[in-house]
Amino acid sequence: MSNFGFRHLRIVNSYQPAFREARSAVGASALLASAEQFKTVAEAVADCTLVVGTTAVRHRTLHQPLRRLEDGARLIRKRLGSNCVALLFGSEKFGLSNDDLSHCHWLMRVPTVDANISMNLGQAVAVCLYELIRDAKTPRQTEKLPLASAAEMERITTMLLDALHLSGFLELRRVADSDQRIRRLVRRLNLPARDAVIWLGILRQIAWKMRSDSDPAPRR
Amino acid sequence: MSNFGFRHLRIVNSYQPAFREARSAVGASALLASAEQFKTVAEAVADCTLVVGTTAVRHRTLHQPLRRLEDGARLIRKRLGSNCVALLFGSEKFGLSNDDLSHCHWLMRVPTVDANISMNLGQAVAVCLYELIRDAKTPRQTEKLPLASAAEMERITTMLLDALHLSGFLELRRVADSDQRIRRLVRRLNLPARDAVIWLGILRQIAWKMRSDSDPAPRR
Repeated sequence: MSNFGFRHLRIVNSYQPAFREARSAVGASALLASAEQFKTVAEAVADCTLVVGTTAVRHRTLHQPLRRLEDGARLIRKRLGSNCVALLFGSEKFGLSNDDLSHCHWLMRVPTVDANISMNLGQAVAVCLYELIRDAKTPRQTEKLPLASAAEMERITTMLLDALHLSGFLELRRVADSDQRIRRLVRRLNLPARDAVIWLGILRQIAWKMRSDSDPAPRR
Repeated sequence: MSNFGFRHLRIVNSYQPAFREARSAVGASALLASAEQFKTVAEAVADCTLVVGTTAVRHRTLHQPLRRLEDGARLIRKRLGSNCVALLFGSEKFGLSNDDLSHCHWLMRVPTVDANISMNLGQAVAVCLYELIRDAKTPRQTEKLPLASAAEMERITTMLLDALHLSGFLELRRVADSDQRIRRLVRRLNLPARDAVIWLGILRQIAWKMRSDSDPAPRR
């Protein structure tokens, strides 16, 4: 990260003894010292308008678009001008869980050979960040409309889930990963910030309506 | 290396205990098991027609062209079709020595930020190899004339040094790094294989002549 000028390291649910030790090690970089810790992915990416997950997997059923690094980086670079983008990496051993992945707008893979698709974590990070800064002549466009942050989209997700539960929708379609499915559904909306506010208002109103209708006592 | 499909690992002057241990470790890759060991850089790159050194250094006086990875990789890809190319990495701690560098045709650097130009060795290797295979659509041209191998160029270097010593040339211009200067001089020739044979013959003849003239006894 420091080699390529990236400064914001965020760590989710770190293994505390190892993290404390790394942070206080002789020669630990300023980057590590200023790393922020979070309990959940949702909190870690809250202020980001684009969340991209990295994965080696190609054949597992993925629910989001999977892009090669070269193509994905092009899209990310276009966003970097005016937005905060999160690049999400899983643990060395297990990668990202389905729940982690459900926070992502889309996924990205390093173009490894089929014989060995599983990369060392540090090397995968280095390769992805290098691709983002390589050929610095590439123009960095900025987008017209400011997009909704992940926190706003997560609020919409929560509100929508609430509404879906209240409506009985999810009870009729019981699947183990319904929350993740809904989260991906919301992420695919790719809402501008101003629209997110409106959608949140709509959902809040619907939920309130259903709640008060099912327990009408307070209104009398 | 195995992630990006590179199979020929050559190790120069390895620290034997660590290398043996790595090689016999559980899960050690086929690549590591088949790694070849050499005593010198010259032997390791003997069959290569292009030797590219990697360095983080930008301000030390470098005696060869220094290219950014993006540009260097483009040149390397053009050669890969019909030639054996060596990508030379130094040790984690010290990088490549001036003597190591003198075996290189040119040098390459990863475009790191000025604040931290020194990369972890494994990450530097991953980034360089990724750049070589990225965007596999890039056409791979092959060169018209087969080039001389590093072994042939080193034979020319040795023969030339012999000739220079015999001629007193080097004794008149005593500098500590004369061998390296001569090696770079030869590498810059970038000889086709068939020309290398001719030049070697010429130098051999010259050296024989000087040697026999200074000690004429055997000829009588």
